[in-house]
Formats: sequence, structure tokens, C-alpha cells
Amino acid sequence: MHLGAFMRPTTIHTGAWRFPGAFPDANFNFTHLKRFAQTLERGCFDAFFMADHLAVLNMPMEALQRSHTVTSFDPLTLLPALAAVTERIGLIATASTTFEQPYLIARKFASLDHLSNGRAGWNIVTTSNPDAALNFGQDAQMDHGDRYRRGREFYDVVTGLWDSWADDAFLRDVEGGRFFDPARLHVLDHQGEFFRVRGPLNVARPVQGWPVIVQAGASDAGRQLAAETAEVVFAGGSTLADGQAFYRDMKQRAAAAGRDPAHLKILPGCFVVIGDTLQQAQDKRALLDSLVHYQSGLASLSIAIGHDASGFDPDAPLPPLPPSNASKSGQQRVLDMAARESLTVRHLAQRLGGYAGVAMVGTPTMIADTMQEWIEQEGSDGFNVMFSDLPAGLDDFVGQVVPELQRRGLFRTAYAGTTLRDHLGLPRPGNRFFPA
Amino acid sequence: MHLGAFMRPTTIHTGAWRFPGAFPDANFNFTHLKRFAQTLERGCFDAFFMADHLAVLNMPMEALQRSHTVTSFDPLTLLPALAAVTERIGLIATASTTFEQPYLIARKFASLDHLSNGRAGWNIVTTSNPDAALNFGQDAQMDHGDRYRRGREFYDVVTGLWDSWADDAFLRDVEGGRFFDPARLHVLDHQGEFFRVRGPLNVARPVQGWPVIVQAGASDAGRQLAAETAEVVFAGGSTLADGQAFYRDMKQRAAAAGRDPAHLKILPGCFVVIGDTLQQAQDKRALLDSLVHYQSGLASLSIAIGHDASGFDPDAPLPPLPPSNASKSGQQRVLDMAARESLTVRHLAQRLGGYAGVAMVGTPTMIADTMQEWIEQEGSDGFNVMFSDLPAGLDDFVGQVVPELQRRGLFRTAYAGTTLRDHLGLPRPGNRFFPA
Ligand SMILES: Cc1cc2nc3c(=O)[nH]c(=O)nc-3n(C[C@H](O)[C@H](O)[C@H](O)COP(=O)(O)O)c2cc1C
Ligand SMILES: Cc1cc2nc3c(=O)[nH]c(=O)nc-3n(C[C@H](O)[C@H](O)[C@H](O)COP(=O)(O)O)c2cc1C
Repeated sequence: MHLGAFMRPTTIHTGAWRFPGAFPDANFNFTHLKRFAQTLERGCFDAFFMADHLAVLNMPMEALQRSHTVTSFDPLTLLPALAAVTERIGLIATASTTFEQPYLIARKFASLDHLSNGRAGWNIVTTSNPDAALNFGQDAQMDHGDRYRRGREFYDVVTGLWDSWADDAFLRDVEGGRFFDPARLHVLDHQGEFFRVRGPLNVARPVQGWPVIVQAGASDAGRQLAAETAEVVFAGGSTLADGQAFYRDMKQRAAAAGRDPAHLKILPGCFVVIGDTLQQAQDKRALLDSLVHYQSGLASLSIAIGHDASGFDPDAPLPPLPPSNASKSGQQRVLDMAARESLTVRHLAQRLGGYAGVAMVGTPTMIADTMQEWIEQEGSDGFNVMFSDLPAGLDDFVGQVVPELQRRGLFRTAYAGTTLRDHLGLPRPGNRFFPA
Repeated sequence: MHLGAFMRPTTIHTGAWRFPGAFPDANFNFTHLKRFAQTLERGCFDAFFMADHLAVLNMPMEALQRSHTVTSFDPLTLLPALAAVTERIGLIATASTTFEQPYLIARKFASLDHLSNGRAGWNIVTTSNPDAALNFGQDAQMDHGDRYRRGREFYDVVTGLWDSWADDAFLRDVEGGRFFDPARLHVLDHQGEFFRVRGPLNVARPVQGWPVIVQAGASDAGRQLAAETAEVVFAGGSTLADGQAFYRDMKQRAAAAGRDPAHLKILPGCFVVIGDTLQQAQDKRALLDSLVHYQSGLASLSIAIGHDASGFDPDAPLPPLPPSNASKSGQQRVLDMAARESLTVRHLAQRLGGYAGVAMVGTPTMIADTMQEWIEQEGSDGFNVMFSDLPAGLDDFVGQVVPELQRRGLFRTAYAGTTLRDHLGLPRPGNRFFPA
């Protein structure tokens, strides 16, 4: 079983910066990030995983100004620093194929892989936030299909550049005076629909051959890109039944693409809230949600139900809703959530404005039970954990859930290898230009 | 007096990887880089300065395969890692305005500045290597004038993005629930000849306001860009008289651009070879040059004299040369060098193939004398030191030259401040959208 930590400096939950004991300044305080990464490494996590976004203004200002998620370190700047203060944990950075250049991305991830002795991973995203385009000279977001075709070609160029040098190209023959062997250098000369890139890369082949490829696309095009290229799929959270369907679909797509399905790891994101008792965990979540400003939660609720919720009585249950064309399934999800936990309009707004994806809320034993069930029932190969609050939520997970998983023989008690590929049980890719 | 270290993992000299005691694998061995940076910090250097190039194939293969300078870490990936293992030394990364995107560069340098608590600097280059264009979908290098106009606009966008947030924008008011003050956020909305960038940046204003701006352009356009924007100018080495002329020119240009000339520091690059005696230093340089392969040196010599040198007797003095239109001044420089040091064709070839810029070769006292003369005669405000060999050349500089400069009261004995601006005596720029 594999565990990634899906990190935001103050967690993904928009109220978490106000939680007792939180570090509200963590977005730009490296000391805190270092502490988190080192604790995760003590917990033998496979990877520290950093999300990324290329714009700010994608929420109404009323909500935006109350959220700590608005700014943070650039992942490809943060992770090298974390590499220098950790030894084993993998380091996965998100980078966009829509707004970056393949030559630059290839050398940055290759450099990170060398710096970290083989611990780099690249989360390929095509960037769905439409506002990002405005920061890159474009009037509007590129079409979804174009984004994914560009993403596929981007991947081909980057992996081709990583293969510029054979693993044994650098002779460093001090006596003879030859630094490298020109016969072990390949000039890519890529010409495609979106890119023309000559190469070679001015960085040696990465320690891992290629950094680990991660992908989180949900659409058909996204799944297909993942099936063809990804080694880790970061699935959106859902029920076990949905998870199993996604798991089967992805493994089948990988096989159809001629790959070994075992080399595609499915790690759904899950939001974890830990308590000594179930009640304590639920209270903790309620406290967390209560820290979301009602006005900003209302915006999320209105979007989710496809209907302006600002006139509703905040302390009453959700009134009967007119049908919505915009988001039938979104509306149903909210209705189910309200029914299951008897939530008022205020609670629902705060839940949706905070974090509304799948959550595991309970004692360490209960959380381990759920994780075990997902693994045993082929719902996933592990999880990308989102901590409810930092630092305590992370410390509790490493201190209480990890030992429980270890006791059950589900999770490593020490790193067996040194690279992220070692941790994930992934093979080192051969060099397409210099076969073994 | 200010000291930067102009670093390549195995020095700028193409024979240095073969020097006794060198680390031939340093290009991708972070342990060595960490050692260098920490030693420089013990020596109170202002900054660790990392060059950058965006292509490999800009030399004939005969020379290329013998040079360790062909590949190395991406600077913006290396420097965050060095930030995590140092406390005070400045960290200057080279980044190209011709091939990068301003939104990405703004957030990377801002992130580095936050990570390092205010130690970032950006060496703005327009990238003169024509091969780089081929890695970015272009058939040929952009015109020199266009490169510099794009560079100037790029700078405007990046500094504008750094000013997206007032220094006090982030309230982090846990009680009231407001993370930032929308009135202290500026949307840039830049529309120019080369870029359209809405903003705001998704990173808080850098610790230093703006990272320190460095520039090394030599042409008129390059000098003008530096006069308008740079705070450190990395001058090419030359004689003291040339240095004085450059110094005067740059200070005057800065004043003409309405700036305080004291806020533009001129730091020529100089290659330093240290010995216990002058003879020892000269022998060391001769040994270093002898490690350059004759064939690769010949290519450099032929270019410098504008004439194929492969038919010359390697062990004789340079024969009389036919006049060259291509490089009259280059030819004269070689003739002067040959006469001054009685160099044979082989020596000249190896000197030019190794490192042929201005060098300080001698005892620590002699080197301190020369540096003192440059400072006192207004030839520079300090130096960007290129070490002859690593690690010994760096250790010798920090262990022998720095103490001599300190004894003379020319160089600090401890860092007085914490940021690169503090070290350089540069003011923190105000925010153009939120004046104090
Ligand atoms: C758990 C998870 C994390 C994600 N992280 C990012 C991210 O950091 N940056 C980003 O631009 N998109 C991120 N995405 C969005 C996906 O890359 C993708 O755009 C989204 O799932 C929609 O799928 P589609 O692009 O296939 O339509 C994430 C998605 C999921 C499910
Ligand atoms: C000491 C020194 C270091 C330089 N370092 C770099 C570098 O790392 N990357 C780069 O592309 N250019 C570098 N340059 C080149 C300059 O940016 C500039 O292109 C060159 O001096 C020619 O001047 P011009 O561009 O004004 O014509 C350097 C120049 C000097 C003098």
C-alpha cells in the first residue's frame, strides 16, 4: 500500500488556517514545510505531493479573501529545498503542459531527480482553471481536446529529452581527457503539432531514468492520457463502488495500451480527520467547517445546487429545491450529504466551502479499517492523504494511523529502496534511443 | 567591496575537471555544490552566482566532448536546494527573458526569495547562444534588438507582478476570518508588445520587495538595459583602464536614467589562480591549461585569430598571421597574450580553449593588491570570482585571499544583515502600486 501526502502549506481545507494550533503563515514559511516533510519521512510516506495553480482570481472575492489557498510556493522551487533536508521521501511537483515549455520542464525535473538522488515525480496537468490563460497572453482557455493533445505531445518531448544521454554517456575519463562519448548522445529533433524541439537536453539522464509520471485527469481524455503515460493516478475521491469502477477502468485501459497494469498505481485523494473517538473526530470536522465564512460557503453551495442559496434560512434544513439543469448530479450529492448527516444550510455551505470530497472521519482504527477495505477490494493501491489540519492532523496520522497500518502488515516500517520508483515498486524505464 | 562566486560545478575552465583533486562528477552531485556554497558562506561572500545556458551543441563535437561545461543543474532548481543548507549567502540564478514566461519567472524568483528569507537575485540574460532557439520551436535566434526590447518588457511585467500584493496585504486575521485585504491587491493587466499578463501573482511580495536584479549585457542595448534596471552588473573582465571606462559609463548611464549610481554595483568577472609564490601560481595555471585537449584548443585559437591554425607547429611561436577582417581585435589580443607570456601555439590554443578572460594569477597578497587597486581606482565595486579549480581553488580563496582582504579592511568579517540587498547595500524597492 502506498501513501502520498497531498500538501498545501495549510491543508486543502479553506478554514484550516484558523484551526487551533495551525500555522497561518505557512504559505511562505519554509520552516513549517520542512517540518511537515521530515515528519512524513519518519512515517515512511512514498511521496510529498505539491499541487499547483497558475492564477488567483477564480473565486468570488468574498470567498477568495478568506482562503489561504490563494498563494503559495511554486512547487518546482519548493521541492528542491525539501530535497536538501530529507533523504528518502519522494517529491512530486505539479507542472502544466498547457503553459510551460518542454525543454524547461525536462531539465527542471531532471535536475530535481539528480539533486534528490532519484526522488522526483511529475504530476502532469493540463490546467483546468480558465483564468490561467490570461496570465499567458491568451484570451481564453485552450480547448479541452487541444489541451490533452498538447499534453500528450509534451510528454513525448520531455521523455525524449530525458533520453538524450545514455546512462553511460558520461565517461569522465580524466586520463584520456574525454568527458562524454558522442556516440552515446542522441539529438531528439522533435517536430510535432505543438512543438519543435531539437535537443539534446543539457542535463544527464535522470537517476530514475525518468522521474515518476503522475496524472489526475478525470475526463475520458484525461483517463486515456493516464493509461498511456502515468505510473500514479491521483483519483478524485468517491465511494468504494465508484473507486472500484475507476480502478478497473484504469487498469484495463493500461493493459489495452500495452502496459503492465501493475505499473499504474491508483491513489485516490482522501481527506482524513482523526479523533480518539468517532464523536471527537466528527466534532473536529464540525469545528473545522465552522471556520469557513458563511458568505464564502454560500457561493459554493449556490454553485453546487445550481440555485442562489442566499435567501435560505441558514439554521434550517435545505428547503425543497427547484430542479436544476446545470448540475443535477451536484444537486443530488448535496441532498444526499444533507440527509446523511442532518446538516443545516449553514453546515452544508461551510462543508462545501471547506472541503467536500470524500473524507475518512474517525479513530485511527476506523481509518485503517477503511483503507484496508479499499486495498483489499481493489478500490485503490493506496491513498493521497489530505490532512484536516496542520501540523496536528499530520502528526496524528504519522503517529497513530501509520503504526496501525504497519501493525496490520499493510504499510512499510522502513524504506526498502532509495528512489521514488523503489518506494512505488515501479521499474526504471529503458532509454528509447539506447536500449539495454 | 563585494564578492560574488561565479560558479560552474567544476569551474569555468574546460580543463579543470581533470585537475588533481577535482570532482569530475560535480555537475550532478549536490554534495559537492553544498560544500562549495557553505565554504563561500564561511568566507562571507555576497552571493553564489549560477550561470545558465539553454542548449548544448554550440561547439564543435571535438571540443564539446572534452568539456564538463556541457551539462549541469538548472539554476532555479539548484539554488532552492542550496538555500535550504545555507543561512546568509545570496543566491543569484540566471534566467532568460527570450525563452521563459514572465508569470513563471516572477513566481519562481519570488518563491526562492521567500524560501531563502530574502537572498534571491535574478541575472537577466537575453541568451546569445543561437542554438537555444532550436529548443523552443524557433528556426533562428530572435534579432538582438528584439531580444532586448522583449527583455525590457519582461522585466516590467515581472517587477509589476512582484508588486501584486502590498507588503501588508496578508492579514491572516484568525479571529475575523480574513486572510488578505482585497484593497491591498493589485491586478496588473499588462498589455505590451510581447506580453499580455493579467495577474495578480499567486505569490506574496518577495521578502526583498524584489529579488536583486543582475545583468551582464555588453552591447549598447545590454548596457542600457542594465543602467535602467540592474543593481549588479557582471562585467566581462578586461584591463583596469577598460574597467574604469566601463565603470564610468555605467554609473553615468544610471544617473542619466534617474537612478542613484551607488545602487548599481559593477562586479567584473575575474579568474583567480592562487599560489604560495608567483611561480607556483603560474605553474598551476600552466598545468590547468595543459589539461585542455589540443584539438579543442585549436578550434578556439582558429576562431580568435580568424584563421585556421591546424597547420601551425604546436611547439613553435605563432607564425606571422595574414590580416583578418573577421576579428582584428581578437587577433591583436592573441598576439599581445603570446608576446607577454612567450606562449607557443599549443599554449595559446590551450589558454583560449580553457579560459582566456582576465585573470589574477599570484599569491594571496598579490591578488588582494590587484583587487584593492581596482576598487580604489574606481574600476569596480568588487568582483565575481571564478575559481581556477574546485574544491582547492575555492578553499584557497576563502582561506587565504579573504583573510587578507579582511585585514586590509576591504571586506566584511561577518554578514551585517540577512538579505542579499543588505550584503550589497541596496535599498528595498517600494511597491509601485502601494507607495509607502
Ligand atoms: C486530487 C486531484 C488533484 C489535482 N491537482 C491539480 C493541480 O494541482 N493543478 C491542476 O491544475 N489541476 C489539478 N487537478 C485537476 C486535474 O488535473 C484535472 O484537470 C481534473 O481532474 C479534470 O479532469 P480533466 O482535465 O480530465 O477534464 C487535480 C485533480 C484531482 C482529482
Ligand atoms: C561574466 C559574464 C557571464 C555571463 N553569463 C551568462 C549566462 O549565464 N547565460 C547567458 O545566456 N549569457 C551569459 N552572459 C552573456 C550576456 O548575458 C550577454 O549576452 C553577452 O555579454 C553579450 O552582450 P549583449 O547581449 O549585450 O550583446 C554572460 C556574460 C558575461 C560577461
